[in-house]
Amino acid sequence: MAEVQLLSTWASAFVMRAEVALALKGVHYEKLPQDLGNKSELLLKSNPVYKKVPVLLHNGRSVCESSIIVQYVDETWPAPKDGADLLPSDPYGKAMARFWADYVDKKVFDGALGLLRSVKKGEEEKKAAWENMVSGMETLESALAEIGGEGHFFGGESMGLVDVMLVPLLAWLPAIEEQVGLQIPFADRLPRLEEWFAACRAHDVASLLPSSAKISDFITHILLPRFSS
Amino acid sequence: MAEVQLLSTWASAFVMRAEVALALKGVHYEKLPQDLGNKSELLLKSNPVYKKVPVLLHNGRSVCESSIIVQYVDETWPAPKDGADLLPSDPYGKAMARFWADYVDKKVFDGALGLLRSVKKGEEEKKAAWENMVSGMETLESALAEIGGEGHFFGGESMGLVDVMLVPLLAWLPAIEEQVGLQIPFADRLPRLEEWFAACRAHDVASLLPSSAKISDFITHILLPRFSS
Repeated sequence: MAEVQLLSTWASAFVMRAEVALALKGVHYEKLPQDLGNKSELLLKSNPVYKKVPVLLHNGRSVCESSIIVQYVDETWPAPKDGADLLPSDPYGKAMARFWADYVDKKVFDGALGLLRSVKKGEEEKKAAWENMVSGMETLESALAEIGGEGHFFGGESMGLVDVMLVPLLAWLPAIEEQVGLQIPFADRLPRLEEWFAACRAHDVASLLPSSAKISDFITHILLPRFSS
Repeated sequence: MAEVQLLSTWASAFVMRAEVALALKGVHYEKLPQDLGNKSELLLKSNPVYKKVPVLLHNGRSVCESSIIVQYVDETWPAPKDGADLLPSDPYGKAMARFWADYVDKKVFDGALGLLRSVKKGEEEKKAAWENMVSGMETLESALAEIGGEGHFFGGESMGLVDVMLVPLLAWLPAIEEQVGLQIPFADRLPRLEEWFAACRAHDVASLLPSSAKISDFITHILLPRFSS
């Protein structure tokens, strides 16, 4: 048995966070793809509460929930020679990172889901969901200056907890924009986040994410039919 | 200016968590009661994202969101002579504590809110909300054995993060039971949580919480009228 295993599915934004965190800390692991339509004994046993991926197995013990996995990875493995830790070392820096990581989950990911759910609704609902998403991102834009300082990332010069939480949007956001038929106004309203996306696209970890075309296909054939049923 | 200040309201379960964490770590602080119907400049400035209490001010810098405040308090101040830290020192123990702390928020507090919202609904909805709350607590009951070991608390021999997250129920749960007219079946279905409640009631921090009678009055006159509007 590999020391580190990750129960995963390819399209899950939550799994992507775990994969990016493991890569940033230079941790080798074995991926165990799961069929969520027919959940394995291993998944049910290792995440009995939510029965969801990702689950990180480390020496047979399981850690669930993406933000908790990212913090566990950060606390368990030292930074690689050419890398950095994912959370700051001081308590106030940690608190800020946790606050904005939680914000990404509550406001940005929920906003993205709302935008997707609006696809089958009227123009007015679609526009409201879009404005909700954009204003949620504007708040995040202000955090980038506050905690990222002069760096490109929320973690400053290197990617940290908040970056890891947000980075699946690299794959998901263009697909959502395509499905909804509305663009996020980066140049007009989110110039620092636009730079953040560019910095992430240029980072090694971008290669871990699926293409937006593949995600768009997933949205069309798997996700949207589920919403309408 | 006091080094540590807490923006608070007396009935908030989230504020209670911050107060209990500060007491367990032996931190002296000044309480700054807030009028949420007429929010102060200080509150708007120190929690611009959510505009809610609790906010912890430490040397003028603000920390928001109860579970983040509890972790900040734990990481900033050492354990007092007769006390312990709120999170375990090993990464796996920390991950488990964070998992169950998050569970308390997502399932138990949301379940309690659902139960309260059912007060003005029919018997069937009330019973469903009650069963949802009880089954959420049963899952938590299993965690008590898993992470608390032989101790009375989720933190083992002393109160930890999960205990701090849950302890406001000491004041709130009897008030909710009274309002809903249904009892949580501790003896039948939640024997370890029953012992947990007894251990908390016997702990010094119980004196920090308002009485259930006062909370019940708050529910009747403040909370329920808000639900129906």
